[in-house]
Amino acid sequence: MRPSGRKLDEMRPISIDVGVTKHAEGSCMIRCGDTHVLCTATIEDRLPPFLRNSGQGWVTAEYGMLPRSTSSRMRREATAGKQGGRTVEIQRLIGRSLRAGVDRVALGERQITVDCDVIQADGGTRCASITGGWVALRLAVNKLMKAGDVITDPLISNVAAISCGIYAGQPVLDLDYPEDSEAGVDGNFIMLANGQMIETQMSAEGATYSRAQMNELLDLADKGVAELVAAQNAAVA
Amino acid sequence: MRPSGRKLDEMRPISIDVGVTKHAEGSCMIRCGDTHVLCTATIEDRLPPFLRNSGQGWVTAEYGMLPRSTSSRMRREATAGKQGGRTVEIQRLIGRSLRAGVDRVALGERQITVDCDVIQADGGTRCASITGGWVALRLAVNKLMKAGDVITDPLISNVAAISCGIYAGQPVLDLDYPEDSEAGVDGNFIMLANGQMIETQMSAEGATYSRAQMNELLDLADKGVAELVAAQNAAVA
Amino acid sequence: MRPSGRKLDEMRPISIDVGVTKHAEGSCMIRCGDTHVLCTATIEDRLPPFLRNSGQGWVTAEYGMLPRSTSSRMRREATAGKQGGRTVEIQRLIGRSLRAGVDRVALGERQITVDCDVIQADGGTRCASITGGWVALRLAVNKLMKAGDVITDPLISNVAAISCGIYAGQPVLDLDYPEDSEAGVDGNFIMLANGQMIETQMSAEGATYSRAQMNELLDLADKGVAELVAAQNAAVA
Amino acid sequence: MRPSGRKLDEMRPISIDVGVTKHAEGSCMIRCGDTHVLCTATIEDRLPPFLRNSGQGWVTAEYGMLPRSTSSRMRREATAGKQGGRTVEIQRLIGRSLRAGVDRVALGERQITVDCDVIQADGGTRCASITGGWVALRLAVNKLMKAGDVITDPLISNVAAISCGIYAGQPVLDLDYPEDSEAGVDGNFIMLANGQMIETQMSAEGATYSRAQMNELLDLADKGVAELVAAQNAAVA
Amino acid sequence: MRPSGRKLDEMRPISIDVGVTKHAEGSCMIRCGDTHVLCTATIEDRLPPFLRNSGQGWVTAEYGMLPRSTSSRMRREATAGKQGGRTVEIQRLIGRSLRAGVDRVALGERQITVDCDVIQADGGTRCASITGGWVALRLAVNKLMKAGDVITDPLISNVAAISCGIYAGQPVLDLDYPEDSEAGVDGNFIMLANGQMIETQMSAEGATYSRAQMNELLDLADKGVAELVAAQNAAVA
Amino acid sequence: MRPSGRKLDEMRPISIDVGVTKHAEGSCMIRCGDTHVLCTATIEDRLPPFLRNSGQGWVTAEYGMLPRSTSSRMRREATAGKQGGRTVEIQRLIGRSLRAGVDRVALGERQITVDCDVIQADGGTRCASITGGWVALRLAVNKLMKAGDVITDPLISNVAAISCGIYAGQPVLDLDYPEDSEAGVDGNFIMLANGQMIETQMSAEGATYSRAQMNELLDLADKGVAELVAAQNAAVA
Repeated sequence: MRPSGRKLDEMRPISIDVGVTKHAEGSCMIRCGDTHVLCTATIEDRLPPFLRNSGQGWVTAEYGMLPRSTSSRMRREATAGKQGGRTVEIQRLIGRSLRAGVDRVALGERQITVDCDVIQADGGTRCASITGGWVALRLAVNKLMKAGDVITDPLISNVAAISCGIYAGQPVLDLDYPEDSEAGVDGNFIMLANGQMIETQMSAEGATYSRAQMNELLDLADKGVAELVAAQNAAVA
Repeated sequence: MRPSGRKLDEMRPISIDVGVTKHAEGSCMIRCGDTHVLCTATIEDRLPPFLRNSGQGWVTAEYGMLPRSTSSRMRREATAGKQGGRTVEIQRLIGRSLRAGVDRVALGERQITVDCDVIQADGGTRCASITGGWVALRLAVNKLMKAGDVITDPLISNVAAISCGIYAGQPVLDLDYPEDSEAGVDGNFIMLANGQMIETQMSAEGATYSRAQMNELLDLADKGVAELVAAQNAAVA
Repeated sequence: MRPSGRKLDEMRPISIDVGVTKHAEGSCMIRCGDTHVLCTATIEDRLPPFLRNSGQGWVTAEYGMLPRSTSSRMRREATAGKQGGRTVEIQRLIGRSLRAGVDRVALGERQITVDCDVIQADGGTRCASITGGWVALRLAVNKLMKAGDVITDPLISNVAAISCGIYAGQPVLDLDYPEDSEAGVDGNFIMLANGQMIETQMSAEGATYSRAQMNELLDLADKGVAELVAAQNAAVA
Repeated sequence: MRPSGRKLDEMRPISIDVGVTKHAEGSCMIRCGDTHVLCTATIEDRLPPFLRNSGQGWVTAEYGMLPRSTSSRMRREATAGKQGGRTVEIQRLIGRSLRAGVDRVALGERQITVDCDVIQADGGTRCASITGGWVALRLAVNKLMKAGDVITDPLISNVAAISCGIYAGQPVLDLDYPEDSEAGVDGNFIMLANGQMIETQMSAEGATYSRAQMNELLDLADKGVAELVAAQNAAVA
Repeated sequence: MRPSGRKLDEMRPISIDVGVTKHAEGSCMIRCGDTHVLCTATIEDRLPPFLRNSGQGWVTAEYGMLPRSTSSRMRREATAGKQGGRTVEIQRLIGRSLRAGVDRVALGERQITVDCDVIQADGGTRCASITGGWVALRLAVNKLMKAGDVITDPLISNVAAISCGIYAGQPVLDLDYPEDSEAGVDGNFIMLANGQMIETQMSAEGATYSRAQMNELLDLADKGVAELVAAQNAAVA
Repeated sequence: MRPSGRKLDEMRPISIDVGVTKHAEGSCMIRCGDTHVLCTATIEDRLPPFLRNSGQGWVTAEYGMLPRSTSSRMRREATAGKQGGRTVEIQRLIGRSLRAGVDRVALGERQITVDCDVIQADGGTRCASITGGWVALRLAVNKLMKAGDVITDPLISNVAAISCGIYAGQPVLDLDYPEDSEAGVDGNFIMLANGQMIETQMSAEGATYSRAQMNELLDLADKGVAELVAAQNAAVA
């Protein structure tokens, strides 16, 4: 029934290649089916003004799409003169989600910026960015710990994200673009490794959803996040 | 236990005054406690390019805060040269939520822009904007129907929104600013009059939440939305 | 002869409600007929760079119009990405006018920002902003004096403003929008309580004016400003 | 008493050289003492949208200062990313003033843009721009008439502008920069050749002015404008 | 003598992988040593206004660097609100260079946009962009020809680019970043397959160069471009 | 054969008037035929951040064109909200070229900004800007030396620039606009007084060039630069 032939609760193939760029303190290319996102983590000593001398660090994120990551070419945001509303929303979500898994006191007074750049898009880029962004963050933090700059591990858990939705009347896991553009209801579910939730975004377009349907999607998300956490752990091992 | 002395499931006093500006096709001032939002609806014959000659109308929203609607003065976005990320997020949410209650074919080829301007802020401005924005939209549509420009009512249901969160370990309804700035978990719940959901946004900061906790907040939201729908109906009667 | 039926030298009804927002140090809603402007005054300890360590304070102003304060919806300046030329002109005028009534040494090293936001427009918004802006400023300064932060009253006089023009060949006081859009000559007159002038702006469109006509308008302005000063004094009493 | 040694009612030396650039339809370099402004007039067939098919033309103006036209270098507005508030105010004034001397129906459906670029500044640049801008406009219109593109002369009068102010307690004509920066009251007076006024802008800083003082400045302005009109006529003869 | 141990006239290893993204009409990842650039070509039916109905097509280019393509993180240009001067210079050069190898009449009324996004930078990104950009362009044009949309091959030659410079007193081929940041003289040489030149940019910093030295660099460039053309031909075969 | 009737190796008449504005530390109006550029040099004590406390100075440049310096009016860059790509390219080139003739340690910790504003354009504005900009720089440095603020002359050589190209199949010196818009190959050659090169930019449009042709243009450039250096020296004598 799904355009890809996948089962209702079947994820797309996941691969996470680490160390893909020589400059960043942490990096990976995450591929969730045909959605490919390059994630890098940069460690800097400077902090946003509101945190100076606070004894705490900061994790933030930026998001972008290459102009031809999509089916028809998108205008480059640098040319347009600003980041669009969708971009701003997504990068705020990535930053907020990653921070939920960080002990900022343990991190100390430094900032880690996670850049998520979509090389090829086929639905679910914000979830792939969070999942891959965490891997880049993990690798950068490992480097800090190996150098003795950080003693207590500031990462209190994996953070991973998956989308689910109601497609053709059925709850499905891990929407790809053809599903995403048709689904009347979809959501993004961001969780820790133990299944505790840190962000839930459900939205309906030309449809509504009941509590029961929401719970069906949450069940699927539990399954998906568990698989993503396993892939993250394998990648950073 | 709540700073305001309210019970856990007690809303702030709601008032909705309609017809507060002489120019707009629909308008109201909604007051949810000390949060006051002026909502106006403007009918225009032009449509965004992607809808021209589609036989469908459009409902969109813009959001702003007066510089001294807040405890310390905010920089005016017109001076800053752009709308901030939070503003963009909120106005996209308002527009999406209101459209979920609209039959855009029945509306016909016209656009209604709902402007929500926060006169005084004390938490929950986006929810007040949606709830008040619907009232302004309802009044503007009434005008179209009275003039015979629209035959079938394009509003298929009330749309209302409420925030709930976990404050001091307890689930509470309708967060005010002192609660909002302390709550580890909070959410915005946007629903139709019959309780079907159209958008759910839950987010944790320095905390996480379980499925059980989410369901407690959803129960509170059901109660809150029912009260808001009653207030909307009284206002437009 | 006037569209409103007013006499040539008759002002619109004036009302000034003070304390209309809980956050600002001073605030009022001024209503000159159907022109309604919300004015707030914000006290801050920081100063513009050119005044640091000068022993003097600063008073500045910003001006905005809500998108549907006008008969047809105006584009929000925050969306347009900048304040328009008319806005910049008006807010510079408001600031300059208010400063003319301030002893900046007595004010001490602090800045007061007066925000004037037009809720509903029907002509004369810049004059209403100055007149109402002075009330907000007066209330904020009262607060400083009551707290003992300022000893000598830095407000040396009321400041008020009125427009006059030549409509249908006759000099008229306090133009409303239908008059303003037809008048070939109009002016804004800003004065102290004693009638001394601090700014005069007369402008003709498709017409010219003689010295005699200018003096007729100045006579009307004297009358109007006296009434506005009385309303200011009543409001802050 | 004046820093320059001029008498109270003495203008700076005026020179107006015409035809100073080979591309523009009309051009002049106006020198009022050490204030030098290059004025060019450009004729184009396109019109602003609100005038298309109206049977009327348009005259507009733009103003700029070269970065080192001033005593210390100013930041280039193209680098700053926008025209400052002062620039916008001035160019709107120039355009409005010039239009007051134009019969826009006689001009026909075309636009003339007058660019006023300050090469060297020593006070009074906006007045010099209006006076020189009119000369450029006159020359461009002459060209249209000579070519038979315009039959009835659309320029109904010269337009000229002069500043006056109260310096060291005395009313003085044609303020230079040292006077302008000290004057408590100053004004710009824009008139037709016959002395009828089209714009009056008086402003006080740290001072006020009475009706009598205003009339003294207007007397000076009458004298100054008469001399400027004579210089304009000599230049275009 | 060279930091990399290369001989004076030795290029870095080149690889060009084609078809690396599923959406673009042509794409490749070019790797010149540690400089990696993703190049995509997009075919669109629209043209810039100056070419509409001209019977000719257009080839243009845009360039960007991922924030962490460099040793320390660069600010994202979309966040900065504009493309920097260096970016604008480079993308104009890429477009101009590629157009030199195109018969725009044979291409017909369509536009091909070549996006060059630097994934990892180690010197020579503009040359790699031109060389890889031509491969993406070649593949997109092949697609047009295969579909019968274009009959005569519009690509009249390969276009390739290489940098040379004087490093530690010696002329060297294909500067990497450590060389580039030390070289007193360097140049970019863009040529057709037959060695005819289409753009030469030589520049000295803290040094100068004679005609003889320029000719030495041109000899090296001839060698480098020949190798790049061979690699291009192998990639698209 | 040339539109102007000049011989192939004949320059346009050059004039350089110095001291043309009273405010700048150095200034000249350079006229190369009908191309007129006003060049000013401003000395400031502040430095760009990367040079603070480095013991070195900085020379930078900005470039602009007056809106009607060209045959049809160009949009003012301050109105457009940014400097165009061509402007940015040119001003970077001017700054880089001038710095090549400066001993920045001898200059000491100060910045000289050279502004080049095109009053009238007829081809070759960037070369005229460099040649005239050096004169303004020379005069400003003379002032510093006369005042004893700089002891060792920081200008190690004249810097001058000339364009050459292939027009109608012939190599020609000093292209004017009619030639520039037709030439298939042209170049800008920037040199010291002794003929050593500091920047070479050759570019072909719809054509290519061989090494032999490049050498012919370089021969012409040698001749042109020698004449420009003589004119510079005469002007500053």
